[in-house]
Amino acid sequence: MSPPLPDKSTKKEHIRFLQQAIDIANTNVHTGIGGPYGALIVHNGNIIAYSGNCVTSSLDPTAHAEISAIRKACQSLQNFHLPDCILYSSCEPCPMCLGAIYWARIRQVFYACSRFDASAAGFDDLFIYQEIAKHPEQRSIPMHHIHLPNALSPFISWQNKEDKTPY
Amino acid sequence: MSPPLPDKSTKKEHIRFLQQAIDIANTNVHTGIGGPYGALIVHNGNIIAYSGNCVTSSLDPTAHAEISAIRKACQSLQNFHLPDCILYSSCEPCPMCLGAIYWARIRQVFYACSRFDASAAGFDDLFIYQEIAKHPEQRSIPMHHIHLPNALSPFISWQNKEDKTPY
Repeated sequence: MSPPLPDKSTKKEHIRFLQQAIDIANTNVHTGIGGPYGALIVHNGNIIAYSGNCVTSSLDPTAHAEISAIRKACQSLQNFHLPDCILYSSCEPCPMCLGAIYWARIRQVFYACSRFDASAAGFDDLFIYQEIAKHPEQRSIPMHHIHLPNALSPFISWQNKEDKTPY
Repeated sequence: MSPPLPDKSTKKEHIRFLQQAIDIANTNVHTGIGGPYGALIVHNGNIIAYSGNCVTSSLDPTAHAEISAIRKACQSLQNFHLPDCILYSSCEPCPMCLGAIYWARIRQVFYACSRFDASAAGFDDLFIYQEIAKHPEQRSIPMHHIHLPNALSPFISWQNKEDKTPY
């Protein structure tokens, strides 16, 4: 993980972009595209990707605003890492989106509502944060670890592969 | 969240499907498509979707095996929820994929390697699990909560919308 770069943007700029994320979320509800969330990604001061939540319209439970914006930003920059990018979201990212932010190596995140606000509006964000902290076998969705003799073989092949693309 | 349905599959069947997930992971490394991970989704005893990790080949940091398999399964069933489905993964799902599993309302998960195995092979799964538990401002990727006057407006619009599709 590379260290955070110095942030040259002012707080006023952060608020401007965050306000746009909220506007996307409102538009998303009014047009019926999906849930009340919006996100955008800024690179060198320019918006390179934005999205509302598209779960219901695209039949994709992973199509949260942040995930969709990350996917678009990666296509825009033709890179699976976004280390010079800032993500603005109308709400605190859920654990799925938080994981995506780490895998994409985004530099910094700003958000307007919290997981508690999302929970009060009927969404599972806070619940999933609580579930993640539990032992896998004790979660509401049962998760079972079965030990198989060759389970590590993909990792061994990966480590021995000379022409791999690390990520 | 609906309660887990009774599981009629035997342990032998679980092992067979889990072995197939490992096979997908191995093939994924050998063909160079992506990282050493594989996942498949079973519905009524039939595999309805499977995928390896496609992060590098698709320039999509969210294209983990589990996420990709969930997306395909939802298209297959034409539903953004998968409550009658079991997910088999060559490795314990990372926080991003775990979140996706909850949003998709998958019934049950089986996995072969652990987050510690993934970490030993150079992947960030364990690190991200540790980061998620921290206060947003204290994470290695700084996350800032800015309070804006109209931040809750998308949630209010959502709650007032009569023709919405809940998810």
